[in-house]
Amino acid sequence: MPVEQPIVLATALAAFREAIGDANVRVEPHSLESASTATFATTARILAILKPSSRHDVQRCVAIAARFVIRIYVVSSGRNWGYGSRVPVVSDSVLIDLSALNQIIAIDEDLGWVTIEPGVTQRQLFEYLKGRRSRLWIDATGSSPDTSVIGNAMERGFGHTPYGDHAANLCGLEVVLPNGDLLETGMARFADAHAAPVYKWGLGPSLDGLFTQSNLGIVTRATVWLMPEPEHFQAFFFRCDTADDLVSVVDALRPLRLDGTVKSAIHIANSYKVIAGLIQYPWHETNGATPLTPEIMSAFRAKLNFGEWNGSGGLYGTRAQVAEARRLIRVRLKGKVARITFLDERLFRIASRYSALFGLLSRWNISRALDLARPVFGLLKGVPTERPLAAAYWRKRNPPPVDMDPDRDRCGLMWCAPVAPTDGEHARKIAEISAETILKHRFEPLLSFTMITERALICVISLTWDRDVAGEDQNARVCFEELQDQLLKAGYPPYRLGIQAMNLIDTDPGYIGLLQALKSWTDPAGILAPGRYLPL
Amino acid sequence: MPVEQPIVLATALAAFREAIGDANVRVEPHSLESASTATFATTARILAILKPSSRHDVQRCVAIAARFVIRIYVVSSGRNWGYGSRVPVVSDSVLIDLSALNQIIAIDEDLGWVTIEPGVTQRQLFEYLKGRRSRLWIDATGSSPDTSVIGNAMERGFGHTPYGDHAANLCGLEVVLPNGDLLETGMARFADAHAAPVYKWGLGPSLDGLFTQSNLGIVTRATVWLMPEPEHFQAFFFRCDTADDLVSVVDALRPLRLDGTVKSAIHIANSYKVIAGLIQYPWHETNGATPLTPEIMSAFRAKLNFGEWNGSGGLYGTRAQVAEARRLIRVRLKGKVARITFLDERLFRIASRYSALFGLLSRWNISRALDLARPVFGLLKGVPTERPLAAAYWRKRNPPPVDMDPDRDRCGLMWCAPVAPTDGEHARKIAEISAETILKHRFEPLLSFTMITERALICVISLTWDRDVAGEDQNARVCFEELQDQLLKAGYPPYRLGIQAMNLIDTDPGYIGLLQALKSWTDPAGILAPGRYLPL
Repeated sequence: MPVEQPIVLATALAAFREAIGDANVRVEPHSLESASTATFATTARILAILKPSSRHDVQRCVAIAARFVIRIYVVSSGRNWGYGSRVPVVSDSVLIDLSALNQIIAIDEDLGWVTIEPGVTQRQLFEYLKGRRSRLWIDATGSSPDTSVIGNAMERGFGHTPYGDHAANLCGLEVVLPNGDLLETGMARFADAHAAPVYKWGLGPSLDGLFTQSNLGIVTRATVWLMPEPEHFQAFFFRCDTADDLVSVVDALRPLRLDGTVKSAIHIANSYKVIAGLIQYPWHETNGATPLTPEIMSAFRAKLNFGEWNGSGGLYGTRAQVAEARRLIRVRLKGKVARITFLDERLFRIASRYSALFGLLSRWNISRALDLARPVFGLLKGVPTERPLAAAYWRKRNPPPVDMDPDRDRCGLMWCAPVAPTDGEHARKIAEISAETILKHRFEPLLSFTMITERALICVISLTWDRDVAGEDQNARVCFEELQDQLLKAGYPPYRLGIQAMNLIDTDPGYIGLLQALKSWTDPAGILAPGRYLPL
Repeated sequence: MPVEQPIVLATALAAFREAIGDANVRVEPHSLESASTATFATTARILAILKPSSRHDVQRCVAIAARFVIRIYVVSSGRNWGYGSRVPVVSDSVLIDLSALNQIIAIDEDLGWVTIEPGVTQRQLFEYLKGRRSRLWIDATGSSPDTSVIGNAMERGFGHTPYGDHAANLCGLEVVLPNGDLLETGMARFADAHAAPVYKWGLGPSLDGLFTQSNLGIVTRATVWLMPEPEHFQAFFFRCDTADDLVSVVDALRPLRLDGTVKSAIHIANSYKVIAGLIQYPWHETNGATPLTPEIMSAFRAKLNFGEWNGSGGLYGTRAQVAEARRLIRVRLKGKVARITFLDERLFRIASRYSALFGLLSRWNISRALDLARPVFGLLKGVPTERPLAAAYWRKRNPPPVDMDPDRDRCGLMWCAPVAPTDGEHARKIAEISAETILKHRFEPLLSFTMITERALICVISLTWDRDVAGEDQNARVCFEELQDQLLKAGYPPYRLGIQAMNLIDTDPGYIGLLQALKSWTDPAGILAPGRYLPL
């Protein structure tokens, strides 16, 4: 158990300073307070922030923490917004910030992989590839360009391209265990194994899965697979004007996802999700009343011109492959959507240039449509964007600043993300439960469904509020718990948990027993992220 | 440690009999001897064979084994030919044969999955789908129709269609642990989780990988993902007449595999592999001399009309998708192969009917070519075949019987299967090492490269001999060890191990330490398959 005697902490801090340098051990109150602030109410106290510069530094820090039995909590870039940001699950932890482990170690253009450290961000990797005129694309999340690539994969986050399932597209983890061991997953433990960056299974039991959504070890390096740029790329956008269309659209797209015609994730956002990306809460038009009822939402939807459901996806390949995919999408979606648009680079540029003219010639507000489409168009080709983050400011009274930071700006944000089969009825049910529960608590149901694999979809539900409004933190918490409970009862557990919801993991004695045995081995002192995806 | 006192065994056997019925506990010497016979020399003694009929039976057997500290070794269908068949790694084990756990539990035609028990064979699943006019395909290995689907996936075996990486295409394992626990991987531990058969990660650390190539638990159920039948299917076959062509062919096909134009595994066999599928060793033409030197091989190749390298793969999709893939393959392989042929169902039927006529009209022996193509054509659409098994009889003096059983028929067979990136130079190096080492020991290098994922290839090297020839078991063993050693030194560890090569697993203290800690938890008595993919 962590020792809270100040003298122990002081001795440990001296050891940390000796190990990684004074400047990399921070204890200033404002830093600690900032690091212990998330997008919802938290109580965990952070004792110090360590910033190791190398894997050896990490090992030294872990050894010291084990010696003094100091709890440690590890973040890569610390942008786990909506799930707890940098805040540890339990109080009195030392935060280890891996952002200085930001080396891009190796790359193979032909085989499409890059070996990186956890501090490497989406932006850094994107710029690096651009700088060397690489023909490889990254897959970016819709969170922030400054998100860690490995950090997101370890949380099993996802993006938009065919490489959207991040944990499925990496291998060869280098892991520092709190017990002092270092291990590499896959083939790397065999000397000079050429297959190490390309073959994930290794030989014998395969361990990669253990270190995702886990507190068993600290990943200090991994190889990420990258998609070769296709000859041709086209994005598709569709909208449905009736809520029920969701069912037939999901069912219509399922076979295309299953047979590989659409390789990208397909993203379907409801009207609330779209409006929160375009404007802030219309306080003026609603006379300050919340929530934005479905009726008012409809009026805005008509005015701002988007659908009840708004879908997007990417097509990749030769011109002929893309053309055939386009034909198949048109056939499958015929009669099920109000509008479908295909955009490639050229069309996108032209439309952007002449958007005002288009607006004059048609009733369709193309400038607004392009505004909506731009970040998604980019994400579908792996261009990171800050745009979706603005939705965290939905209920704020001031507009999002240039350097958005939802933690600092007291944006309320909690994500609940149930998984279901790619089946229209399941999607409808999740949408229904969400809308009903969230509106009842006077928040807005911001939903997006992502057809993430051939067979599964994940619904990301953003609960958004203004933390500066008294009582709202508590209201949101109650709403979140009811929502999660309803979804779970209906058979839709989440794919991922925030620090406030880790109790959900504790369900099955066989599963938990095995993990706890493993935890006793990798972390006998119980110092690494206690409570994270494993009951205390 | 296992107790070998006869009295303990007798008491345990009585308990087994009471638990699962007299008829399901076999101790007749001929059964035990047959079960302890593989395709190479083994020494492990089997004490009894248990045939549980249900998961509960399995749990009862495991509990009894734990109580009496009796080692158990588990097989699904027992056809792990070339890797040890049914023979345990260590002696004095009780064999648990899961073949009676052969229920097909659930199926979903729309989402493409089936939940099955480990006794379900490729043939059974294939017939089941045919019987219900399903539009779902299985992915079959080139081993035997009577191979267990789950057993093969747990060994991380592979097949030929886009679902060729078997371990990657299943989820939701139900696992009996020797400690008495039962666990389910993925989402199934949450009540009524609809995503359980479609989403593999679950919530929290993901365990699936732990139970592949493993002795940590007994998988008694899993959900296997199945490919929906495409609108159109076409197989492609190509041959190269120069050994060096391997390099440029692999490099030319890599981008097509990476960008998804070719979704199936691509299979490239050398001339030795092909001839062993067509005829037995030409004892007459060689006057009994071994090995079949490259010079004699060349003469046979010219006579029987196949290439130094003989490739195949499948194209799936709409007619337009298949046509575009065909065009791209032609472009990429132009000038790199001596011949390329595309065959669909219709062409295949016509060619089969008029093969004699074709033969008269051209110098190309189409009947022989079709003979070669037929089983591969089937495998590419998930039709299991016994054909490749005949190659195990290559060095025998008698032809393969109708009911082939390489164990019984004393066929010598050992597989060595190194992994490498999909890169021509690596393929060439593996081919070179194999040919040199194997010919030196007077066997033939039967090789096939499979481009199994977007980035990795596996070379399956079959070492084949006649166990009835005195000294050959030992010669093969020496050859195998030298071969494996050479490949490992060159940086090509294998993807899978036979029971005779389990020592290879023991390389890294971090990896082994973690697994041993896990083993102590799941199997405190150390009864389950000791030595299997984990040092004793």
